[in-house]
Amino acid sequence: MWAVEITEPIMSDKHVFYLGDTSLSGAAGYLAGLMSAFGIGFDYRPSDRAVSASDLKTPRKLFILSDYASKQMPADAQAALLAQVQTGAGLLMIGGWESFHGHGGDWDDTPIARALPVEISGEDDRINCDQPALLIKSADHEIVADLPWEDRPPTVGGFNRFTANPRSETLLIVERFSARYEAGRFQFDPQAQAPMLVVGTHGQGRTAALATDLAPHWVGGLVDWGDGDRITAQAPGSWQIEVGNFYAQFIANLLAWTGQLHHEKLS
Amino acid sequence: MWAVEITEPIMSDKHVFYLGDTSLSGAAGYLAGLMSAFGIGFDYRPSDRAVSASDLKTPRKLFILSDYASKQMPADAQAALLAQVQTGAGLLMIGGWESFHGHGGDWDDTPIARALPVEISGEDDRINCDQPALLIKSADHEIVADLPWEDRPPTVGGFNRFTANPRSETLLIVERFSARYEAGRFQFDPQAQAPMLVVGTHGQGRTAALATDLAPHWVGGLVDWGDGDRITAQAPGSWQIEVGNFYAQFIANLLAWTGQLHHEKLS
Repeated sequence: MWAVEITEPIMSDKHVFYLGDTSLSGAAGYLAGLMSAFGIGFDYRPSDRAVSASDLKTPRKLFILSDYASKQMPADAQAALLAQVQTGAGLLMIGGWESFHGHGGDWDDTPIARALPVEISGEDDRINCDQPALLIKSADHEIVADLPWEDRPPTVGGFNRFTANPRSETLLIVERFSARYEAGRFQFDPQAQAPMLVVGTHGQGRTAALATDLAPHWVGGLVDWGDGDRITAQAPGSWQIEVGNFYAQFIANLLAWTGQLHHEKLS
Repeated sequence: MWAVEITEPIMSDKHVFYLGDTSLSGAAGYLAGLMSAFGIGFDYRPSDRAVSASDLKTPRKLFILSDYASKQMPADAQAALLAQVQTGAGLLMIGGWESFHGHGGDWDDTPIARALPVEISGEDDRINCDQPALLIKSADHEIVADLPWEDRPPTVGGFNRFTANPRSETLLIVERFSARYEAGRFQFDPQAQAPMLVVGTHGQGRTAALATDLAPHWVGGLVDWGDGDRITAQAPGSWQIEVGNFYAQFIANLLAWTGQLHHEKLS
């Protein structure tokens, strides 16, 4: 069972407001599909539609921004969202070409940026990896618990380069490799490391910044991370995804912690 | 300059018929964008639209099938396509969940399959790689010439598993690795190898089977393969892509050879 069971009565059955990842017929099919499988109710806003302050006044437990450019969220809308984070809602930004700085994300120097646990670059922060890049668990935390980071570390295809703020906690880092093929075998040489998952707080709310995307192409091998137990899921209005079981568990953990989605089981 | 210059007068200025990869607003943006940048004229058919025998009677230099399920091409349409290959057109199948066998591709035991240089599985042949998989050049050939396979081998995210036919030539193979993280460092252990690019002939036409996709997610790091010289391109009716320069060169080589698109330069 993949349900994130919400055991408290709360104000709306759409606990999550998910903004970005192009559309439900596109990249948003991954996260929307999994939330549907987990039993997490959500409202969705595609990347090409702006959001207003009044849109952000419906009480939520979690806001997810993923490839949703800052120009789509005016200052008063950002203030409305952050007012909810101050009183306990979660805020998760997921990487992509329109996340963090990216190529048109332009979240640096915004109110949302100042609530996140990372420092966003003022320049293009996109790192595209044509050679292996693997994830390393750098701290124990319920988001990264009970997953085979050592025995079966997953790859990613790219990420936004940011730095962790003081008083944040870095749970995952990414290590990039330079690979060469010589005399009939590959050699792998470690290159730079960078923060991959950083968590913090803003008022009473929890915040998280994930540097990679959860959809192709940056998600890389992470989308297939698993031991053969494939998960199929489909959100209303979207298409059927088929992903790895560890990927699904990692996302369940990430949403549950950041959104304080109390649950009896995640198994 | 990325132009594939076609120096002979030929029957149509749409030398290529490209079928599949969902739609021009989706995955087809990659290959369509590059063909536009190369100056290769093409007609396009999305994955959800069938093709008839009469559609396939317009003379072409190259047919590309990528995530285009066999159920969309009736037997008489396959015969019409293959009649052109017999007299010199090229046939390229690119991997994906709806290519080769895949998950609904079901090209095994079809007339098209019998013209390709590989044996297609009768079962689900999809290999999704959550850990590193890298390409190895296994023969010299103009498709793989002048690219840094040894110094900077690219990753892929997955592929269809097929076997090379007798009288074919395997130009690229993929090697999968099991990675572990122990005592502060990664260890990489080679696992299975599989054919990645196989070429052959059918009558006077050239044929090629590429096991990975050229679009996310299976394309993996290959889409960003480059030394920093990023290529932007956009097909009419599609979106702007930004890819690696070696990826673009590899595709230029692949299309030029398979379609016998005579050219003065590819630089």
